[in-house]
Amino acid sequence: MKLADLAQQIGGELAGDGSVDVTGVSPVDDVKPGHVTLADSEEHFAQAEASAAAAIVVSIEVAQSRKPMIRVKKTTLALAKMLAIFHPPQKPEPGVHPTAFIGRDVSLPASVHVGANAVVKDRASIGERSVVDAGAVVGERVVIGADCFIHSNATLYRDIRLGNRVVIHSGTVVGSDGFGYAQEGRTRVKVPQVGTVVIEDDVEIGANVAIDRSTLGATIIKRGTKIDNLVQIAHNVVIGEDTVVCGLAGISGSVTIGDNVTIAGQVGMADHISIGSNATIGAQSGVSKSLDGGQYYLGSPAVPIGLASRQYAVWANLPELSKRVRELEKRLDELKPR
Amino acid sequence: MKLADLAQQIGGELAGDGSVDVTGVSPVDDVKPGHVTLADSEEHFAQAEASAAAAIVVSIEVAQSRKPMIRVKKTTLALAKMLAIFHPPQKPEPGVHPTAFIGRDVSLPASVHVGANAVVKDRASIGERSVVDAGAVVGERVVIGADCFIHSNATLYRDIRLGNRVVIHSGTVVGSDGFGYAQEGRTRVKVPQVGTVVIEDDVEIGANVAIDRSTLGATIIKRGTKIDNLVQIAHNVVIGEDTVVCGLAGISGSVTIGDNVTIAGQVGMADHISIGSNATIGAQSGVSKSLDGGQYYLGSPAVPIGLASRQYAVWANLPELSKRVRELEKRLDELKPR
Amino acid sequence: MKLADLAQQIGGELAGDGSVDVTGVSPVDDVKPGHVTLADSEEHFAQAEASAAAAIVVSIEVAQSRKPMIRVKKTTLALAKMLAIFHPPQKPEPGVHPTAFIGRDVSLPASVHVGANAVVKDRASIGERSVVDAGAVVGERVVIGADCFIHSNATLYRDIRLGNRVVIHSGTVVGSDGFGYAQEGRTRVKVPQVGTVVIEDDVEIGANVAIDRSTLGATIIKRGTKIDNLVQIAHNVVIGEDTVVCGLAGISGSVTIGDNVTIAGQVGMADHISIGSNATIGAQSGVSKSLDGGQYYLGSPAVPIGLASRQYAVWANLPELSKRVRELEKRLDELKPR
Repeated sequence: MKLADLAQQIGGELAGDGSVDVTGVSPVDDVKPGHVTLADSEEHFAQAEASAAAAIVVSIEVAQSRKPMIRVKKTTLALAKMLAIFHPPQKPEPGVHPTAFIGRDVSLPASVHVGANAVVKDRASIGERSVVDAGAVVGERVVIGADCFIHSNATLYRDIRLGNRVVIHSGTVVGSDGFGYAQEGRTRVKVPQVGTVVIEDDVEIGANVAIDRSTLGATIIKRGTKIDNLVQIAHNVVIGEDTVVCGLAGISGSVTIGDNVTIAGQVGMADHISIGSNATIGAQSGVSKSLDGGQYYLGSPAVPIGLASRQYAVWANLPELSKRVRELEKRLDELKPR
Repeated sequence: MKLADLAQQIGGELAGDGSVDVTGVSPVDDVKPGHVTLADSEEHFAQAEASAAAAIVVSIEVAQSRKPMIRVKKTTLALAKMLAIFHPPQKPEPGVHPTAFIGRDVSLPASVHVGANAVVKDRASIGERSVVDAGAVVGERVVIGADCFIHSNATLYRDIRLGNRVVIHSGTVVGSDGFGYAQEGRTRVKVPQVGTVVIEDDVEIGANVAIDRSTLGATIIKRGTKIDNLVQIAHNVVIGEDTVVCGLAGISGSVTIGDNVTIAGQVGMADHISIGSNATIGAQSGVSKSLDGGQYYLGSPAVPIGLASRQYAVWANLPELSKRVRELEKRLDELKPR
Repeated sequence: MKLADLAQQIGGELAGDGSVDVTGVSPVDDVKPGHVTLADSEEHFAQAEASAAAAIVVSIEVAQSRKPMIRVKKTTLALAKMLAIFHPPQKPEPGVHPTAFIGRDVSLPASVHVGANAVVKDRASIGERSVVDAGAVVGERVVIGADCFIHSNATLYRDIRLGNRVVIHSGTVVGSDGFGYAQEGRTRVKVPQVGTVVIEDDVEIGANVAIDRSTLGATIIKRGTKIDNLVQIAHNVVIGEDTVVCGLAGISGSVTIGDNVTIAGQVGMADHISIGSNATIGAQSGVSKSLDGGQYYLGSPAVPIGLASRQYAVWANLPELSKRVRELEKRLDELKPR
C-alpha cells in the first residue's frame, strides 16, 4: 500500500513522499523494515527516526523528518485504523460444522458460522454473518443479531437478546441466575430469576465475565459499551452507552450506570445505587452510594478525586502526623501538665 | 389462579376479594394487568395502588386498599414463592443427547438429562433427575446426587462429590488443583493436589467460580450455602452451612468459615484463618486474622463495624484533621516557640 | 515402600528403623495407619507421635521419637515429593477421542491425548505426551510443547505458543483480545489485537484465568511462573520467571514484572508500570507506580512494608488520634482562647 493511500484511509495529513510502499505497522521499539510506526512524544519520534520504519505517524509537532510522515490528532486512533487495514479480522468460513448441534426451529442464515462441537438450542435465532465458535453454547430462544462473534466456550443461557456486532469472548457467561435468596429462618429460599439479559449493538465483552439475568425484566448493557475480563455484573443492572468497565470490577444488583462512564479495575459497587453519565471511578474504589455524573471519584468509599487526593496525601504521611500529635502533647504537657 | 389460592400457597393472609384471577407477578414499577405486585414501603404501596395490578402483596401495615391484598411478613420471601408458582423451573427432558459422550461404567438413571456435547467420564455416578447441560464435563468417578443442575460448560474434575439439589452455573470449575508449591532454590515444586471437593445438599454456585481440590482430604462446601459469581475458593477451605459468599470474593487456602456467615463482594481472606458462625464481613474487606462469630466486620484489615465506622469517619475528614494539627502547632509555636 | 527408600527418594536423613513399610502420606490431624505424616512444629510433632503414623517426617530438632523419622529441611518440599511418589499423576491414555474434532494439517504425535468433544483447529501443533482434555478448544496455529496438560473446557485462541510442561486449568482463556479502544468522539473504536501470547516452560495457570493477547508483539509468561485462579492478565504484560500471582489479582496492560516476584491475592496494578525481581506485594495492594525489586510492599497505594506497617498502625487507632487532637484543641483553648 502506498503511504498516500494509507494517509487518506486513516484521515491523516501526508507530509513527504506519499509514494513509498508500507507493508504493516510496528511498535516503535521493534520496527520491521517497510512498516509504519507511531510517535506521540519526542522520545518516540527520535526512536522512530532511528528505526527501519518506512514512515512515521505523528501526533506531536515536528519540524521535519528524514522519513515521510502522516500527521494525525491521536496515534491510538490511527493505530486502530491501520491495524484494521493491515490485519483484517479473521472470520471462519460460513457454515455449520458437522460436529455442532443445532436444535429445532433455529433461525440460521447460510452466512453464519457455527464451530466444532458448538451447540445452538431450540428456537434460537442467529443473524447474518455471525459466528458461534467451537464449544460455545447458545440457549433456547436466544436472539443474536448480525455480525456478532460468540467466541469458543462462551455460554448464553436461554432467552438472552444480543444486538448487532456484539462480541462475547471465551468463557463468558451471559444469563446465569441472579444471586437472589429470601431468608426463611436460616434457610435461603431461591428467588427464581425469570428475567433476561439484553445486550445492545456494538458491545464487546471480555473473557470469563459473568452477567446475571434479572429477577424480572432485564439486565441491560447498552450500545457501544465495552467490558473487560472477569467482570461481575449482577441481576437487574443497567449499564448505559459507551461505558467502559475494566477487569475484575463488580457491579452489584440493580445498579444503574449512565453513558460514557469509566469504571477502572477491581472497582466494587453496592447494590441499588446509580452512577451518573460521564463519571470516572478510579481503580479499586468501593462505591457505597450513588454518584453524580461528570466527576472523577476514587477511594473506598469513593469520593470526588479532590477530596480523595487530600485523603491519600495525609495517609502517605500518617505515621508522621501521629508523631506530630504526640509531640504536641509533650509540649503542652511541659507548658501546662495535665 | 384465584388470589385466595395464591394467598394460601405463599402462606399469606388474604384481605379482600379472594376470587379475583391472578396470572403472574410484576415489579411495582412495571405492572402487567392481571398480575400481582408487591409493596414493602408506603411509596411502593402508592405505586401499586395506582398500577394495573389485580392485587397487592404487602408487608407493611396498610389500613385499606382499593385492591385485594395478601398480607405477608417478608415480600422477598413471598416473591420467591410466587415466582416459583408462576414460573416453574424449565428442565430439559430426560435422556442422553446423541452428541454427548458417556464413559464406561457410568451410573446414569433414565431420569437424567445429559445435554449436547456434554461429557461424563468413566465411573461417574449421576443421581435421579439431575441435569448435565450442553458442553459440561463431569470427571472420572464424580458422584452427583439427585435433582442437581450442572449448567453448560461447567467443569467438574475427577473424584468430586455433590449432594442433592446442587446447582453449578456455567463456566464454574470444581476440583482444579490447589495452588500449592514448595520452593527448592528458586524453582517451585508442585505439591500434588490429591484431595477432593465435597459439596453438600442445596448448595448453589454461580458462574465462573473456581473451587480447588484439597492437597489431602477435601475442600468442603456445606449444606445450603450459596456462592455468587467469580468467587475463588482455595484448597482445603471448609465453608459451613447456609453461608453466603458474594461476587469476586477470595477465600485463601485452609480457611474455615462457620454457618450462616455473610461474605460480601470482593472480600479477601488470608490463609489458615477461621471465621465464626453468623459473622458478616462487609464488601472489599481484607480479613487478615481469625474473626469471632456473630459480629459485623469491615475494612482492610477487617475490624468490628463499630471501630471501622469510627475509622472511616476520621478518614472522611482526614485532610481536616491534618490541618487542625498544623494549626495546633502554629498556636503552640506562638505561645512558646520551639 | 520401605521407609529407607522413601528417605532416599525425598533426600532426607533416616533416623530409626528404615525397614518399616509406608503406604501413603497423611495430614497430621487425620493420619491413616501405615502412612507417613509430617511435623514442622512441636505441636504437630506431639500430634504425630500420638497418631497411627508409621513414621514422621520432621523439619524441627527433636531429640528422639517412638516412631522412625526422616529428617528434612522443609516439610512442604518433602510433602511435594512424597505425594508425587504415592500419587503419581493420572494421565489419560494416548489417542484422539472419536468425538473430538481435529482440523487440517494438525501436528499430533501418537502419544498425545485429545479428549471427548475437544477441538484442535487447523495447523495447530501439539507436542509429545501432551493432553487436550474434554471440551478444550485449541485455536488455529497454536503451538503446544511436550508434556503439557490443557484441562477441560479451557480455550486457547489462535496463534498462541506454549512451551513444555505447561498446565492450563479448566475455564482458563489464553489469547482473548486485549482491552484496547481509541476514542473517536464518544465512540470507542476497537484497536485490533493482532499480537499473541507466549507461555514458557513449566508455567502452571489456574482455573478461569484470562490472559489477553497483545496489541502487537506478545504477552509473555516466562519459565516456571505459577498463576492462581481468576487472575486477569492484560495485553502486552510480561511476567518474569518463577513468579507467583495469586487469585483474583489484576495485572493491567503493558506491565512488566520481574523474576521471582510474589503477587498476593486481589492485588491490582496500574498499566505501564514495572515491578523489580524478588519483590513481594501483599494482598489487596494497589500498585500505582513502578516498584523496585527485592522489597515487600503493601497497601493501596502500595508502599514499602515498613511505611505500610506504620500507616496501618495509626489507622488502627485513628479514632483515638482524632480524639487526642480534639483534646489538644480544648487544652490549648483553655490556655489561650482563640
